[in-house]
Amino acid sequence: MKVLVWNENRHEQTNKVVADIYPEGIHGAIASFLQDDEVTVKTTTLDEKEHGLKQELLDETDVLVWWGHQAHDEVDDVIVDRVKKRVLDGMGLVILHSAHFSKIFKSLMGTTCDLKWREASEKERLWVVDPSHPIVDGVGEYIELEKEEMYGEHFDVPTPDELIFISWFEGGEVFRSGLTYRRGKGKIFYFRPGHETYPTYYNPEVQKVIKNGVRWAKVTDNQTPTYGNAKALETISEKQ
Amino acid sequence: MKVLVWNENRHEQTNKVVADIYPEGIHGAIASFLQDDEVTVKTTTLDEKEHGLKQELLDETDVLVWWGHQAHDEVDDVIVDRVKKRVLDGMGLVILHSAHFSKIFKSLMGTTCDLKWREASEKERLWVVDPSHPIVDGVGEYIELEKEEMYGEHFDVPTPDELIFISWFEGGEVFRSGLTYRRGKGKIFYFRPGHETYPTYYNPEVQKVIKNGVRWAKVTDNQTPTYGNAKALETISEKQ
Amino acid sequence: MKVLVWNENRHEQTNKVVADIYPEGIHGAIASFLQDDEVTVKTTTLDEKEHGLKQELLDETDVLVWWGHQAHDEVDDVIVDRVKKRVLDGMGLVILHSAHFSKIFKSLMGTTCDLKWREASEKERLWVVDPSHPIVDGVGEYIELEKEEMYGEHFDVPTPDELIFISWFEGGEVFRSGLTYRRGKGKIFYFRPGHETYPTYYNPEVQKVIKNGVRWAKVTDNQTPTYGNAKALETISEKQ
Amino acid sequence: MKVLVWNENRHEQTNKVVADIYPEGIHGAIASFLQDDEVTVKTTTLDEKEHGLKQELLDETDVLVWWGHQAHDEVDDVIVDRVKKRVLDGMGLVILHSAHFSKIFKSLMGTTCDLKWREASEKERLWVVDPSHPIVDGVGEYIELEKEEMYGEHFDVPTPDELIFISWFEGGEVFRSGLTYRRGKGKIFYFRPGHETYPTYYNPEVQKVIKNGVRWAKVTDNQTPTYGNAKALETISEKQ
Repeated sequence: MKVLVWNENRHEQTNKVVADIYPEGIHGAIASFLQDDEVTVKTTTLDEKEHGLKQELLDETDVLVWWGHQAHDEVDDVIVDRVKKRVLDGMGLVILHSAHFSKIFKSLMGTTCDLKWREASEKERLWVVDPSHPIVDGVGEYIELEKEEMYGEHFDVPTPDELIFISWFEGGEVFRSGLTYRRGKGKIFYFRPGHETYPTYYNPEVQKVIKNGVRWAKVTDNQTPTYGNAKALETISEKQ
Repeated sequence: MKVLVWNENRHEQTNKVVADIYPEGIHGAIASFLQDDEVTVKTTTLDEKEHGLKQELLDETDVLVWWGHQAHDEVDDVIVDRVKKRVLDGMGLVILHSAHFSKIFKSLMGTTCDLKWREASEKERLWVVDPSHPIVDGVGEYIELEKEEMYGEHFDVPTPDELIFISWFEGGEVFRSGLTYRRGKGKIFYFRPGHETYPTYYNPEVQKVIKNGVRWAKVTDNQTPTYGNAKALETISEKQ
Repeated sequence: MKVLVWNENRHEQTNKVVADIYPEGIHGAIASFLQDDEVTVKTTTLDEKEHGLKQELLDETDVLVWWGHQAHDEVDDVIVDRVKKRVLDGMGLVILHSAHFSKIFKSLMGTTCDLKWREASEKERLWVVDPSHPIVDGVGEYIELEKEEMYGEHFDVPTPDELIFISWFEGGEVFRSGLTYRRGKGKIFYFRPGHETYPTYYNPEVQKVIKNGVRWAKVTDNQTPTYGNAKALETISEKQ
Repeated sequence: MKVLVWNENRHEQTNKVVADIYPEGIHGAIASFLQDDEVTVKTTTLDEKEHGLKQELLDETDVLVWWGHQAHDEVDDVIVDRVKKRVLDGMGLVILHSAHFSKIFKSLMGTTCDLKWREASEKERLWVVDPSHPIVDGVGEYIELEKEEMYGEHFDVPTPDELIFISWFEGGEVFRSGLTYRRGKGKIFYFRPGHETYPTYYNPEVQKVIKNGVRWAKVTDNQTPTYGNAKALETISEKQ
């Protein structure tokens, strides 16, 4: 199974807090816990040629993990279309945290993907509301994060195919924080936590959810529907 | 209630069969059965200035009905974005037949919206699978159309919020032919029948469904969620 | 429109706190805000003959509102089956608070409908997550209740057709607190708040939601599907 | 993985046509293609003690396959409750053909599960409408059965979590013929084909779907939610 972790990788260059927490970049931290005997992980970032998202690399990728925040607009539309086509053709996509506002996610959802937010180092508790879903395999009834950015409802996305987590925030809000969607033949998992100034991606349960999410998002490419003009399978009667 | 019926209006100019069936254009035929004491209907077409979709007109429109086929690519992206924004802000949208491939529908769905098709004057029978839905108010167990174009599965759209009709085709295919979606605050109804060379929009039950669909799609603009930076509603504890 | 408010009406007889808050019973309080020019309201209670749920009364009822808590087991199975049949035939059903554990709700859901709970006079904030739904017409972004019983996830119900409210609780939990389901031709709305020892049903926004919910649950009885042995609509070929 | 195939096994005793097609019973035919290196299959039938559904056997069963038709009423309610409890606790359940009317399925759905039907040896074509679902792994765009009983809409079940097949029938009907549901921690797959007088369960693609369905229905028992009275996770303020 081949996983590509893509990161904007800008905060890491300019914000010492972020650089100290993630010395190998957010992509490096995520790659290091995803890598195992069954999963081969590569990482690429925004400032590489073609944003590190060449067609050949996407073609061999089973699941793409995406983290972005301040530079969504710098992602070239041609590359967004390329990624979208791969998702619809059967690549998995895991969208993390502030990537709710990425071009690729908004384009697949068809909505604004807007929400409330607040940076106040507040407690988040992610409650499992779909306890038999494979994405929460090995996770307890909730995950508690001492300090996170708040995201609050209303979250302007289509009704998810599956709702897996709902977050409670210390400041009084709630958020649908684990969502799955099928689009074309691709499977998409949105997972909320992971603000760059907190060490969220070192939390073992957050890591477990992302690992599970990556496995869940892999598509068994079992079917290739045909589209377009189709010959009749039954005799069609003559009509006047 | 204010309804705008938009039509590409090209087949009517070049194909005598279509012009004979719809002398006032497909938009004219649809407008004439939608108009009643409670509904004010306007029509506009592709070749008008700004495609007849000026901001002011959209702003006062409750529900937009859309028919297009051969000229989807000629619809300006700026206008598509304008219509999409209005839908997400709470305008209803009824997408008819070949408008499954319109820019506006594809942009709201996030998928290819591809399907199988065949022009063979074959029988279509649309079965109601959600009998208590207001869109089938006054409709029997099925609607039978003697001659229609075939659309067949797989239809590459997101799982609908509600599935209302499934079509049986003489040539051996099936199709999910009545679908609803909520996107942002807008309500969307896709209804399959209406190939330009058949008099489908004169069928009384097809008319009833479109009338019901237009009423269903009107949004009670009851809520304006706030987005962006949000003040805490509860005291957030100091952390180290 | 004819509404029947059914109440167990036992706490009111034995608990002075409840009796003081609801001197006319919970059913009386609910009936008084539902009644208006368009809605005729009746109330019945557990200890009446046939629990006040005679066939003739159910047959003329458009929407049944149900409150129960300590005496679910005393509701006769024959009456439960009668109510269920009416719901499936097209009666609306509004299930309030502790009626999550009523026989009628469990029978329609097919699951245990279990949950976490705590009586600690804590703050509940119900966030709207479906802002264009008619059930939240006229309601703000959230409803705040100073003191309520807590209900927490996991709530063991089927995935709702629509998720309208998510509750935040002071003690750290979340709950899916406004849910809709279609079963047969009936429409069901579950709404969480309303513990008997708090004056929740006097809250104007709670009242608005229940009023809206009752209107939403009324079924337009537009279709009577036929079931059983069916004559072929097309010629079936002879086979060997 | 442990699978239990349960069959009513009555037609096989009284109808020579059925006995000739399924000399080992329908359960025997299904068991023989399910059995492989990873799957251990047992079979039991209605006329065994406790219908062959003892608690110990259910406790060790991962997925139960159910075929019944003429003797649904003879299944003891106590046994139905036992099976239901196991499903809600995390056992998979595959419901075949006429078992749409079994007590266990109706009890989990909460609806009548009624439908149209006709025995006329007509052609059925099951179209895949969810091509990336694991249940259709290795299956083409459709499955064609030369002779089957017809089941037609309206099918009175809750909206499925996933719709996988839609059937086209020679006589003019359609049917949602592959449906999935989650109830409690259990996963349920309904699959339409398999009338007792046709050799449907020897069709290789039907077998593939049932094999895939059994694998899909196995629950990873990853979570045991707690229910009932819950201690607060946060401090609850004193109120007047």
